[in-house]
Amino acid sequence: MFAQAITVPTRMLDVRDNLISRLEKLIYSLINSAGIHATHQSQSSAQLAAIYHLRSGGRRVRARLAIQACSALGLSEDDALCIAAVVELLHNASLIHDDLQDQEKLRHGCVTVWTKFGTNVAICTGDLMLSAAYGALCRVSNVQVLPSLLALIHERTASAIDGQCADLAAQTHAINSTDSYEKIVIAKSGALLSLPLELALTACGKATWAGEARKAAEAFSIAYQIADDLTDIQQDRLTIGLNILMVLESEGQTTNTQDAASRLGLQHLDAAAAAAHRLPCNSGALLLQLSCELREFLTPRNTG
Amino acid sequence: MFAQAITVPTRMLDVRDNLISRLEKLIYSLINSAGIHATHQSQSSAQLAAIYHLRSGGRRVRARLAIQACSALGLSEDDALCIAAVVELLHNASLIHDDLQDQEKLRHGCVTVWTKFGTNVAICTGDLMLSAAYGALCRVSNVQVLPSLLALIHERTASAIDGQCADLAAQTHAINSTDSYEKIVIAKSGALLSLPLELALTACGKATWAGEARKAAEAFSIAYQIADDLTDIQQDRLTIGLNILMVLESEGQTTNTQDAASRLGLQHLDAAAAAAHRLPCNSGALLLQLSCELREFLTPRNTG
Repeated sequence: MFAQAITVPTRMLDVRDNLISRLEKLIYSLINSAGIHATHQSQSSAQLAAIYHLRSGGRRVRARLAIQACSALGLSEDDALCIAAVVELLHNASLIHDDLQDQEKLRHGCVTVWTKFGTNVAICTGDLMLSAAYGALCRVSNVQVLPSLLALIHERTASAIDGQCADLAAQTHAINSTDSYEKIVIAKSGALLSLPLELALTACGKATWAGEARKAAEAFSIAYQIADDLTDIQQDRLTIGLNILMVLESEGQTTNTQDAASRLGLQHLDAAAAAAHRLPCNSGALLLQLSCELREFLTPRNTG
Repeated sequence: MFAQAITVPTRMLDVRDNLISRLEKLIYSLINSAGIHATHQSQSSAQLAAIYHLRSGGRRVRARLAIQACSALGLSEDDALCIAAVVELLHNASLIHDDLQDQEKLRHGCVTVWTKFGTNVAICTGDLMLSAAYGALCRVSNVQVLPSLLALIHERTASAIDGQCADLAAQTHAINSTDSYEKIVIAKSGALLSLPLELALTACGKATWAGEARKAAEAFSIAYQIADDLTDIQQDRLTIGLNILMVLESEGQTTNTQDAASRLGLQHLDAAAAAAHRLPCNSGALLLQLSCELREFLTPRNTG
């Protein structure tokens, strides 16, 4: 139900599908770039696992956010693809290592990399994709912006790692304040969701807007996580996973926890939509659209 | 004995120690760069583990190779430090993940990161250092060379990952040809040993010499690995670890395997020294010096 609610808008898919197909080719070439120096003529296990992971699904939301923003801001298609490759590779590197750390056996209905290829190959695969993400930057046309892009990518990647550390710690020490919950979500998910827009704005000389993009993406990431938590609550109760319903309960909210969580999510969506709307040249259009669709999911329905 | 044989030359230590101290500061700032966005005011477990790992030892050989080459080639100290930070962070990221994959409990006489902080933190720590390595590039003064540096770093990192995959596979399927052994060593160790010189040459517009630097570093890496294998043979026989003595035995060398291994190492050292000597502006001086010291160790002694 939730997955359906945040499906990428059909119109956006139509317009961009040729670019997404070029993106996949770029990503594969970055993953296979060590081919000539490889110890074998064939692909390494990490290369095979990376391709397996990418082919097993994913909606490329971060790549689409980058492509839409770059297009709106007048960047070339080649630059848009570079930035899209950076964010999509970073995101998928984090998924492969997160799945291993969380011992998740399935993703998108397929067995996860560590389950299929083993722990050691999964570590190598995440490393390869993380390196490939930075490798994608070498094709950006305006070299003057590279230092800013590099600094930004490392800062957000370090933040995502920081958030993952806090999330893992929360599995043994339950988080019991909304404030801590939001900080972890912002670090873990907000950082890599805001990167597509921040990179696009920085690449076209509008870095002063990056703060606004970040505000939008961070607020969206909290709402997204709340929607996810509402879907996953039964599974999360079995572990001590991070879940807003359990956080609200530990804060003393004993009744209508789901409504309270939805209201909190809607507040963040309002903030996300307002900030996305303010971004220059309509560069926040897709984030705005995703916010509107998530609003549908989080709005309490009158089922009477 | 071997560790002593390849100690960094004392003279080189004297000259460069102030730079090594600046390097450590730069590396720490890159590791802590997510501080302002951190979920806690204090350091994350990955940041703590990265600092722990760096403080637990290491001779910074790759950093010293970079600093010596950059200095010889007329690059600024700031650029030398950036390149040194890249190679040292990459190398240490690989050590942290390799130790986890190989289940090594000790490094430099200290417990390894995964042993002290756990598997999940070790994965995050390696990721953080890998990202920080690329983050260091944002301070390179000549932005025109950044695309070439980025492409080179990703290519060598992907090669090192490829080599690690092959090394891990060798733990279950023994390597039984010198050719395969050398290919794995070149991919796994040669790539990150050649990177300091290749980056220095590329950063100063002498990328045409990078191939020669690579030849020198790859040959040195094989000799270094052979020396290491001669020291570790007893331990390696307990597992099916990659070891030149076992490779030579499987190729039919039944007597004087140690001498045969030493001879092979010395051949590679000759090639390494010759190529290092050819590099412009004396930029291979430290690699040449390390080759001479390793020669001492590998030369059969008349103990009569």
